[in-house]
Amino acid sequence: MADLTKSNLESLNEAECWDLISAGGIGRIGYSGRYGPMIQPVNYKVLDQAVVFLTAEHSTMGEDLRTGIAHAEYLVAFEIDDYDMDAHAGWSVLIQGDAHYVESEAEKAAVMQTGVEAWVAGERTLFLRIIPAHVTGRRVARPA
Amino acid sequence: MADLTKSNLESLNEAECWDLISAGGIGRIGYSGRYGPMIQPVNYKVLDQAVVFLTAEHSTMGEDLRTGIAHAEYLVAFEIDDYDMDAHAGWSVLIQGDAHYVESEAEKAAVMQTGVEAWVAGERTLFLRIIPAHVTGRRVARPA
Repeated sequence: MADLTKSNLESLNEAECWDLISAGGIGRIGYSGRYGPMIQPVNYKVLDQAVVFLTAEHSTMGEDLRTGIAHAEYLVAFEIDDYDMDAHAGWSVLIQGDAHYVESEAEKAAVMQTGVEAWVAGERTLFLRIIPAHVTGRRVARPA
Repeated sequence: MADLTKSNLESLNEAECWDLISAGGIGRIGYSGRYGPMIQPVNYKVLDQAVVFLTAEHSTMGEDLRTGIAHAEYLVAFEIDDYDMDAHAGWSVLIQGDAHYVESEAEKAAVMQTGVEAWVAGERTLFLRIIPAHVTGRRVARPA
């Protein structure tokens, strides 16, 4: 841990994390799926301090994240970052929380209001919302 | 599955995946850690069709990925992507495999030869190599 005191690595507080990710964009969802550890990029938006995105009903992810048990939800990671390769600098935010299937029409309408869309063509009828339990972030700057 | 036939989503074969990621850059490692599902960006290079990167001995990741059992290795996901936000287009590659601690001096020298470096200052004395078991990729284009 000693090297952190003289480090170019800075922890971000939760408010800073939300500021960085509030515009939406590409984030990556991570979970343990039936084919092992998975990371998949999705186009997301933020709605009421939760991450929302769309996927297909019969996609691997859509099926993996169903627990099949009422009110039991799948714990996932969601990561967003932005790096400047030339500057060796950037930030990342990690959200850990439950992946919740948005079922009610009112909730679905709120998700659609964010303007979120899937880039993959075809029916994207599953609306997912990640309800954050932990939000952490870090920023790295080029060493002096 | 039906929507895939008329989709703007294309699967990449393994050779295409290696071509896309061979230059190195920022990738994201995903695994189930002691604090739940994790995704962490790292600066990686490719060496002999494996992903290599450096981390700190006493980092959360460095400790999480040790099984403590000889020859037993931790199954991880490693994801690399590149997107053009304006074009709604891009690609992603997912590698699944074991995270192997590089121990021998000869192997460490080979890793250093790739020019890989950690952006976080301080001692990065753990050399990790992800030995791919599965390599998959996909490319999404703007729908016509």
